[in-house]
Amino acid sequence: MGGDFGPEVAIPGLAKSLERHPELRFHLFGIEDVCRPILDRHPKLSSASEFHHCEIAVRMDDKPSKALRQGRWRSSMWRSIEAVKNGDADVGVSAGNTGALMAMSRFCLRTMANIERPAIAAIWPTVRGESIVLDVGATMGADAQQLIDFSMMGAAMARALFEIEKPTVGLLNIGVEEIKGQEEVKEAGRILKVSGLPGMDYRGFVEGDDLGRGTVDVVVTEGFSGNIALKAAEGTARQIGEYLRAAMTRTLLARLGYILAKSAFDRLREKMDPGKVNGGVFLGLNGVIIKSHGGTDADGFAAAVDVAHDMARNDLISKIENDLKIYHARVSATDIAEQEQQ
Amino acid sequence: MGGDFGPEVAIPGLAKSLERHPELRFHLFGIEDVCRPILDRHPKLSSASEFHHCEIAVRMDDKPSKALRQGRWRSSMWRSIEAVKNGDADVGVSAGNTGALMAMSRFCLRTMANIERPAIAAIWPTVRGESIVLDVGATMGADAQQLIDFSMMGAAMARALFEIEKPTVGLLNIGVEEIKGQEEVKEAGRILKVSGLPGMDYRGFVEGDDLGRGTVDVVVTEGFSGNIALKAAEGTARQIGEYLRAAMTRTLLARLGYILAKSAFDRLREKMDPGKVNGGVFLGLNGVIIKSHGGTDADGFAAAVDVAHDMARNDLISKIENDLKIYHARVSATDIAEQEQQ
Repeated sequence: MGGDFGPEVAIPGLAKSLERHPELRFHLFGIEDVCRPILDRHPKLSSASEFHHCEIAVRMDDKPSKALRQGRWRSSMWRSIEAVKNGDADVGVSAGNTGALMAMSRFCLRTMANIERPAIAAIWPTVRGESIVLDVGATMGADAQQLIDFSMMGAAMARALFEIEKPTVGLLNIGVEEIKGQEEVKEAGRILKVSGLPGMDYRGFVEGDDLGRGTVDVVVTEGFSGNIALKAAEGTARQIGEYLRAAMTRTLLARLGYILAKSAFDRLREKMDPGKVNGGVFLGLNGVIIKSHGGTDADGFAAAVDVAHDMARNDLISKIENDLKIYHARVSATDIAEQEQQ
Repeated sequence: MGGDFGPEVAIPGLAKSLERHPELRFHLFGIEDVCRPILDRHPKLSSASEFHHCEIAVRMDDKPSKALRQGRWRSSMWRSIEAVKNGDADVGVSAGNTGALMAMSRFCLRTMANIERPAIAAIWPTVRGESIVLDVGATMGADAQQLIDFSMMGAAMARALFEIEKPTVGLLNIGVEEIKGQEEVKEAGRILKVSGLPGMDYRGFVEGDDLGRGTVDVVVTEGFSGNIALKAAEGTARQIGEYLRAAMTRTLLARLGYILAKSAFDRLREKMDPGKVNGGVFLGLNGVIIKSHGGTDADGFAAAVDVAHDMARNDLISKIENDLKIYHARVSATDIAEQEQQ
């Protein structure tokens, strides 16, 4: 029901992802009168889905507290998260209200053992391919331990999504000299360097321009600067798109050139389109929830479902749990060694 | 002497700016053997300049502490800042080591009365024209009072640079709802709203994508997220430039289209070129110092000198001092009124 276009986008999006992954099965939660006519247009999807009618749908402008008060137990958003909790679904996907989705996910799924706060991970297009950036807005400020948790969760997601064994990880900072940066970032860097975790290759600090460069597979930061970086990059891409349109229509020659190079421009537009790598992944909860962009189209929603498919197939949650176990065993071992030295 | 190319870029840059502003006069500080042959190639600039030989030049990779220890009193960087302090120069411009330039500027010029920490203001290209964004890396973290100081300094700079009477000001935040954001940002917003300063039109919170949109004339944030936003945007522009180049050479038709639309592309490249709006302005010191990009070319350095010219001509320092005076008079008046109420 969520997003700017509701089931008009979500249902065709599911159908597209099902074409690519015929083994997918769906539990759909929504207002039946609204969804059924659209679903009937997609017979393959229909027979791969079970529909669950819900009386209430969380609105895009509901405050998280109001959504929780009115929508707990019975809204389509809540019940889709509950399906993940109960094990009926491997992953939940929603294009709805981000604040409400996070509040309900935390309330229903709870954070994993040893994880204090969840994070939202974005899939960032780079000149090398894609990177994972987290947190992009679930939390504000993070201490060293939380940045380390984000690093482990992001590395596990990179292993699940990109299928690489030891993804490279960098901490977002200003300036690569070790002297610079916030205390928490420096502290997290020191610990990551000595802890030598098997599931990641920690590469030190990276800067804002390393994001688009794809210097590392996973970029870790706290949610305030992560969200600002994400939106600044999106805004710049849109801005350049506007410049490009204006430049390409100004003169007759430019217009002719545009027509000749149209397929090249279309490919460029696809690369610049944030919908193509759609899906913010909530990490650190006992279950995976994926937030699709509210303004996305069917292709973008399908991309979010594709991400969900990868997360489930590669069992993201076990990967994270496993990494946390190794880390905490090492940290306790270090603590013991330190105590023995004293 | 600073920047990746030293006087090879700085001197031709000065000559370009002098063409546009024949009333400019320069004090040049550097190693005479290196500079003089280049300067001799620009007779007009030569006769508008006074050259001061300095034995030492701060290196691009010197730590600020080392630069201060070895370069104080006698390096070309120090002496150019000192010229601002003594009133021999209205503004200082350097393409050198940012950390050293800020450390020396603080040490030599000192912060203005009532300003705890200086900020670096960037001139940001937007679809509407240009905005000022500060702080982009001088400080890390800022309390509400510092964000208010940045707002006043940025608004004064907008009045000097864009020659508008009441520039619009926004605080960078995540989400425009008043409920979101860091405590300091919310607190600064509350105070700016009630204080109704005459030199700015405070517009509330803006997000990362408002930067490129040019929603407000002045965007205020603390240095960590400001630096990351700046570099994320620069990185995205570079990334799209690479996509564009690749797309435009892939097929014969695209290449033909590119040739026809070449002037349009050149105009676009100029818009996307950070050198065109080159110049980070140090604000909050008893004198204006402008940091040109280290990797810039002569056009970029000339742009930084043009900014210096505007700052001097419109007397930025008095504008800031005046705003601070009004603000502190109002705040004390409010304090008194509050005390009387109690």
